[in-house]
Amino acid sequence: MQKFRLEKDTMGELEVPNDRYYGCQTQRSKMNFDIAADTDRMPDSVIRGMAVLKKAAAIVNQRYGLDEKVSQAIQDAAQEVIDGKHKEEFPLVVWQTGSGTQTNMNVNEVISNRAIEIMGGELGTKTPVHPNDHVNKSQSSNDTFPTAMHIAAVVEINQRLIPALTQLRNALKTKSDSFNNIIKIGRTHLQDATPLTLGQEFSGYYQMVSNAIERIEGTLPRLSYLAIGGTAVGTGLNTKKGFDVAVCEEISKITSYQFKPAPNKFEALAAHDALVEASGALNTIAASLFKIASDIRLLGSGPRCGLGELNLPENEPGSSIMPGKVNPTQCEALTMLCAQVMGNHTAVTIGGANGHFELNVFKPMMIYNVLHSVRLLADGSNSFRTHCVEGIEPNKKRIEQLLHESLMLVTALNPYIGYDNAAKCAKKAHKEGTTLKEAAISLGVLTEEQFDQWVRPEKMIGPSD
Amino acid sequence: MQKFRLEKDTMGELEVPNDRYYGCQTQRSKMNFDIAADTDRMPDSVIRGMAVLKKAAAIVNQRYGLDEKVSQAIQDAAQEVIDGKHKEEFPLVVWQTGSGTQTNMNVNEVISNRAIEIMGGELGTKTPVHPNDHVNKSQSSNDTFPTAMHIAAVVEINQRLIPALTQLRNALKTKSDSFNNIIKIGRTHLQDATPLTLGQEFSGYYQMVSNAIERIEGTLPRLSYLAIGGTAVGTGLNTKKGFDVAVCEEISKITSYQFKPAPNKFEALAAHDALVEASGALNTIAASLFKIASDIRLLGSGPRCGLGELNLPENEPGSSIMPGKVNPTQCEALTMLCAQVMGNHTAVTIGGANGHFELNVFKPMMIYNVLHSVRLLADGSNSFRTHCVEGIEPNKKRIEQLLHESLMLVTALNPYIGYDNAAKCAKKAHKEGTTLKEAAISLGVLTEEQFDQWVRPEKMIGPSD
Amino acid sequence: MQKFRLEKDTMGELEVPNDRYYGCQTQRSKMNFDIAADTDRMPDSVIRGMAVLKKAAAIVNQRYGLDEKVSQAIQDAAQEVIDGKHKEEFPLVVWQTGSGTQTNMNVNEVISNRAIEIMGGELGTKTPVHPNDHVNKSQSSNDTFPTAMHIAAVVEINQRLIPALTQLRNALKTKSDSFNNIIKIGRTHLQDATPLTLGQEFSGYYQMVSNAIERIEGTLPRLSYLAIGGTAVGTGLNTKKGFDVAVCEEISKITSYQFKPAPNKFEALAAHDALVEASGALNTIAASLFKIASDIRLLGSGPRCGLGELNLPENEPGSSIMPGKVNPTQCEALTMLCAQVMGNHTAVTIGGANGHFELNVFKPMMIYNVLHSVRLLADGSNSFRTHCVEGIEPNKKRIEQLLHESLMLVTALNPYIGYDNAAKCAKKAHKEGTTLKEAAISLGVLTEEQFDQWVRPEKMIGPSD
Amino acid sequence: MQKFRLEKDTMGELEVPNDRYYGCQTQRSKMNFDIAADTDRMPDSVIRGMAVLKKAAAIVNQRYGLDEKVSQAIQDAAQEVIDGKHKEEFPLVVWQTGSGTQTNMNVNEVISNRAIEIMGGELGTKTPVHPNDHVNKSQSSNDTFPTAMHIAAVVEINQRLIPALTQLRNALKTKSDSFNNIIKIGRTHLQDATPLTLGQEFSGYYQMVSNAIERIEGTLPRLSYLAIGGTAVGTGLNTKKGFDVAVCEEISKITSYQFKPAPNKFEALAAHDALVEASGALNTIAASLFKIASDIRLLGSGPRCGLGELNLPENEPGSSIMPGKVNPTQCEALTMLCAQVMGNHTAVTIGGANGHFELNVFKPMMIYNVLHSVRLLADGSNSFRTHCVEGIEPNKKRIEQLLHESLMLVTALNPYIGYDNAAKCAKKAHKEGTTLKEAAISLGVLTEEQFDQWVRPEKMIGPSD
Repeated sequence: MQKFRLEKDTMGELEVPNDRYYGCQTQRSKMNFDIAADTDRMPDSVIRGMAVLKKAAAIVNQRYGLDEKVSQAIQDAAQEVIDGKHKEEFPLVVWQTGSGTQTNMNVNEVISNRAIEIMGGELGTKTPVHPNDHVNKSQSSNDTFPTAMHIAAVVEINQRLIPALTQLRNALKTKSDSFNNIIKIGRTHLQDATPLTLGQEFSGYYQMVSNAIERIEGTLPRLSYLAIGGTAVGTGLNTKKGFDVAVCEEISKITSYQFKPAPNKFEALAAHDALVEASGALNTIAASLFKIASDIRLLGSGPRCGLGELNLPENEPGSSIMPGKVNPTQCEALTMLCAQVMGNHTAVTIGGANGHFELNVFKPMMIYNVLHSVRLLADGSNSFRTHCVEGIEPNKKRIEQLLHESLMLVTALNPYIGYDNAAKCAKKAHKEGTTLKEAAISLGVLTEEQFDQWVRPEKMIGPSD
Repeated sequence: MQKFRLEKDTMGELEVPNDRYYGCQTQRSKMNFDIAADTDRMPDSVIRGMAVLKKAAAIVNQRYGLDEKVSQAIQDAAQEVIDGKHKEEFPLVVWQTGSGTQTNMNVNEVISNRAIEIMGGELGTKTPVHPNDHVNKSQSSNDTFPTAMHIAAVVEINQRLIPALTQLRNALKTKSDSFNNIIKIGRTHLQDATPLTLGQEFSGYYQMVSNAIERIEGTLPRLSYLAIGGTAVGTGLNTKKGFDVAVCEEISKITSYQFKPAPNKFEALAAHDALVEASGALNTIAASLFKIASDIRLLGSGPRCGLGELNLPENEPGSSIMPGKVNPTQCEALTMLCAQVMGNHTAVTIGGANGHFELNVFKPMMIYNVLHSVRLLADGSNSFRTHCVEGIEPNKKRIEQLLHESLMLVTALNPYIGYDNAAKCAKKAHKEGTTLKEAAISLGVLTEEQFDQWVRPEKMIGPSD
Repeated sequence: MQKFRLEKDTMGELEVPNDRYYGCQTQRSKMNFDIAADTDRMPDSVIRGMAVLKKAAAIVNQRYGLDEKVSQAIQDAAQEVIDGKHKEEFPLVVWQTGSGTQTNMNVNEVISNRAIEIMGGELGTKTPVHPNDHVNKSQSSNDTFPTAMHIAAVVEINQRLIPALTQLRNALKTKSDSFNNIIKIGRTHLQDATPLTLGQEFSGYYQMVSNAIERIEGTLPRLSYLAIGGTAVGTGLNTKKGFDVAVCEEISKITSYQFKPAPNKFEALAAHDALVEASGALNTIAASLFKIASDIRLLGSGPRCGLGELNLPENEPGSSIMPGKVNPTQCEALTMLCAQVMGNHTAVTIGGANGHFELNVFKPMMIYNVLHSVRLLADGSNSFRTHCVEGIEPNKKRIEQLLHESLMLVTALNPYIGYDNAAKCAKKAHKEGTTLKEAAISLGVLTEEQFDQWVRPEKMIGPSD
Repeated sequence: MQKFRLEKDTMGELEVPNDRYYGCQTQRSKMNFDIAADTDRMPDSVIRGMAVLKKAAAIVNQRYGLDEKVSQAIQDAAQEVIDGKHKEEFPLVVWQTGSGTQTNMNVNEVISNRAIEIMGGELGTKTPVHPNDHVNKSQSSNDTFPTAMHIAAVVEINQRLIPALTQLRNALKTKSDSFNNIIKIGRTHLQDATPLTLGQEFSGYYQMVSNAIERIEGTLPRLSYLAIGGTAVGTGLNTKKGFDVAVCEEISKITSYQFKPAPNKFEALAAHDALVEASGALNTIAASLFKIASDIRLLGSGPRCGLGELNLPENEPGSSIMPGKVNPTQCEALTMLCAQVMGNHTAVTIGGANGHFELNVFKPMMIYNVLHSVRLLADGSNSFRTHCVEGIEPNKKRIEQLLHESLMLVTALNPYIGYDNAAKCAKKAHKEGTTLKEAAISLGVLTEEQFDQWVRPEKMIGPSD
């Protein structure tokens, strides 16, 4: 049978499960915010970001007079949270107070109770480690939660997204290089156009993902500014001068990423433009990946009645009715999640625009969406790379066949027979369903030898000297 | 040389061009809101909607004591605005006060000055027709502007959008009927699938546009509720009981569409959910048309290296480099404008969410976007229908060829040789690049006669008895 | 130690955990789509919708020849899934194939293996109940998944959202009624305006939520059309005539909601406009609730330095630094989740627009977002109602004080002293910081008795007779 | 009477108005794309960007053999277009072919005919200056239009947006500096919080606009890459090596902004991620300005029944019913246009994601929205600055009054009487409606002298030493 202990806050007493480290403010939030409780938890990486901050603050607070043993116990407890040891202690959802105060208190409660336990005390007594006076010392939810948001975003972007994009870029580069001698028909407006190599086509994708990495990296400087030290409204009331710099140094050590105090703490609490900006970069990346995945599935369409220029890896049966059917499922998963990232971006933008005065209170929603987008793009890139891109093979026979059927090779004749005669050849071939060569010869504008000499796709894939 | 007259309002005196009917409040707005002034004018249909209201109010106000001659002059002047005679008198932009007050005053000023002229008075004297006391009598910007918004939306939807969608639906129906005996390969996941008729494929498009009409019609009941009678905050201060009903009756007569007083005037001023809802329907229609246009351009892709099942009308030269190139430009214009409608919808949603207390002050932006979307979808549907859909021809030879190459006809063999053997046939044919028939015969699972008897696409396009 | 059994599909053999009902197609999907696997599961209600369909299909298939015992075992197994007994058997994520095929197969595998168990057979043998031949009989992922999407949407809207909105509407109505005699200052443009009652103000909110219910109900007719019977591409290949009607009847019985076969199966597979439309309604509701929550928190702002007209329930301590601080946290959670719904809507729209040919392959993403939005709005409305709306109390003293300080009561003097004199009074009072009465008397335009007789807010809250 | 001349292209002959420089491809587009023709013209700055390119190309083509006189005539004609002399010659709308080909041909036709005229030839003869062979030499719509898009974006951002944002930033800085000694109540969650100076509050706005400038500047490097030299599909067929570099140098000279050839031309034609990225920056700026404008109007709300801490400039009468009413109309215009920018961004994102193969065909829509957003934010910032920010005055009396009424000053007592006693003071004062001082004294926890010594807002606006 579940046992309870009685805890107390300024609203009064409340029963808390006895086997939990979290306390009554966490319990209140659970009761007051029963919203999508089974699916929409505050992301792990925010909890870890918060624990990183609590550890760093304990280290610095010790310099400003916090008892050494208390500080050490807080550090140890925080480290356990960083290590992912207490996941069940953080049951709160995203849809709580817009400042994230309840998650700040959740973390304060768990760390203080675990620190009390480490020091041999009794859970719930707030002695010798008080959630507010010690774990939250010199802090306010209003600066800790945005600090944890930025830590989480920077860590996730660096640890998940950039490596995933880098590997995808490399895989596309490898394909581009290996496809460099395969000349194929180009398509503009989805219509036949002049040729290029398959390697050139993939070099565009490679460039897009290279740019994607630049774009998200370009948002890191502003994400690396932390709100800590601003406390309640940005003034830093109840902190000491230098506290912010020292905490950022400790956070940098713990995470191995460089963080600095925000140059203006009022902005750092009241606006989350840095998240809107980062979400904008993620949105751009989603647009890029959507296009790449769409192209690849169209190039792989068929096997008989589509374009059929690429063979995509066959990962699973595609149909229970149609034997042998294989579908571009990785492209589908990727385009779906790119659409989600675009939707998440709309939500982040609306949240970012609707802050008031000294505090934006769309914090949990904003970071939830940014982290979701980072996760989707990272996992999606990995899945797409390993289960699709790396296994793509050109269907050389088909590529060759289409290239030589194309009427747009006629463009090569312009310098020899003039634009008007060239147009006549193309129109005649199109109308009569013949090859370009047949049409040109039958029009008497050139000989077969001339055609073979002049229409050479391999001369059409770059500027001339 | 431009001459000016001196006009006066409660802020003081201001020079106004002497040849203009508009007065100093219009002039102030021009000076204070120099924002995209050359492109983002308040839409004509809002001005006309406002003039309809002013005429109706003059008729009703006469019953409540407004001088008959003044009333008649207002009606005559308003009718001229309805008839589009004074377009240059409405120079204000969308980006003004969020209540549309300045456009309300612009209309009041133009109608009063024109009415003064009709009655032989002197412009700018406010005698014998005062912009506020007479033209705006029993009204406030806060109820007139949303009234004009709803009138404009209802008129434009009825006069532009529904006819355009109806004609597009009919054109798609005609095509569907005429394509009903053309059996073609189906495609799911962009991959070859079991067959259907081209008529069936187009029947899906027909159904989508039919639903589109239902959807936008479904928003008309709430758009037909008018805010008039609410005056400043929804209470109806300074109106008489019955004024709202009577004005709605007159508006219905003038426009030939049925309007009623909003059941709750507080909602009608403070929220524009009816516009968000209508924009949601327009957004759904945009999604439908985007899909239809995308399909049609893919089906028309080629002419040699694409799917090539449809021949789209050739409307203009497609390229200055590539002779004979023709592009699916109508599909491109349509998909572009559908994307715009989706963007407009985001703007409308944000505006709708951000009203405060007794008045939403995103009114001009909201109606601007709704009307823009209506216009784009209407004009776009007409253009797409006349320059593309009506001229679409099936490429029967290509359709037939692809149908018979498809491996997915194998599905018809399941009942005779079993799913496993069928799968073997498909995989063998795919691997070796042969026809299904060749593979099946070489596997010894059936005879040529059996194949021809069992694999009959025309039996695969519906449920069996 | 985890034990495995070897299962087989057309791609080959694969090890599956021995204690799981799911089979190797589920296992393949888990391996191939490791994307946000800990958070983004296919929603429960889709799984239940799928099981409802499988049960209904088994009943109908029996009429068309399916063995009675097999049918009964399928029905029993499906019922267990409907009852939520096998949640751990559905581990797949949203980011899979865009047709939802893998979830269809997941359900087929679980039901067939459980049915095998019920009938005394051995898991993984596909005997006597085959996942494709029996559980999926006369079906295709392409018609079952969209069928389950619509069932899930209709059930969730009816069981969660409409009751939650109805209770919120009722709570607002109750408040509106009880506030009907409290006259307060109105605010337009956030500036002081003419008065209204607090009951009138809340009646606008009540109307908005009433409309919200109408709006979502208006989408149900099209959501109640099911794709079942269309099989692979909409033609109904491999089904019998009448199958669709019969299955819809059984689904209606099982769920108690009325469903019908889609009038056009091609549209039902290829487009999910009905979901885009429903999402549009949810987006409108989000805009409404955003406005209501924003108003209420502004009206409750303070306690000393804000508007302070409402006292909101105090649910939890608001700050660790500032004693006694209480925040409008329910309003914050609600506005955050409304922003999420708007973002989800963007994602749904993009998915809806990007279908190709016979199949839209954004299905899992689209239904995931629609169901997420339904859940958020339902849970959010319940939370906001119980923890905020029902406990709202007017701060009558503050309301009274602001009402009488307002200069906009001057509007009542227009009929007696004229607009110009009224303007002088208001401007003098504003400039000198006096009351309106003081200014009016000092201007000599009326006596104290006249002022008290004419300026009566209770006469300003409706049209006159 | 309008006279016509007969012109000819590869589709046949067509009548063109005789007094127009544009030719039959322009005429065809006018006929084929009658979509929002009165409002949605291709933006001027795109036309100018195109003319810049044509001039640069003529200069470079001369080096590669173009006749000197022809080159000079093209340069002169192009310069006239750059100078805005032929605006009526560019009647085409945004909703045309997705490659912008028709606008490219429009420019080619106008420049060639004007050049013909300069050289004494006859309009429409294509002699001695041919629209394709000479004006479009070494170019394709597929590289010229995206080149013009980037030129237009870079020029407009530099000439309109950055100066406007810089001036707004400076105005906010000036206000922040001048408000630096005004201590006021802070507000978090819209609730009273600890104090800060009005200068600190405005410093947050200043920081946001500073960041805005950084953000948009951060997109310029990728916008400064030009597609020119890629011709039809990115390969550069029909250009000479070095052409791209030379043209970019000439464009840099003409515009005074540095442009370079895109490092990958395939990406530059097929993807417009640089525009999606730039739009993301504009979207972030819109979120920032939305928040600033919302704060300022809330701080200026009243005059009697709102917060009333700021006096905003009175620019125009606010109401026809309510004398003396003045509204925060500049804030309203700004928030409306910010919502539009967010909507435009959704459209740009959808367009960016939906390119296919070698060409994105959402080009006109994408650049239209980016330029519209640039224009709105630039004009809106100027209007907001000159008509609002620069005239803001603090209402010192009101600010002082609210500051001293606030219960949150209690936070200063924590170090002296403890958190619990402080909480008691605040709760007692709140409950009984007294001042904090009265409550504290009556509780006996301190003396009046102590209160006055300890509760000093000027000590609460920064960290302690």
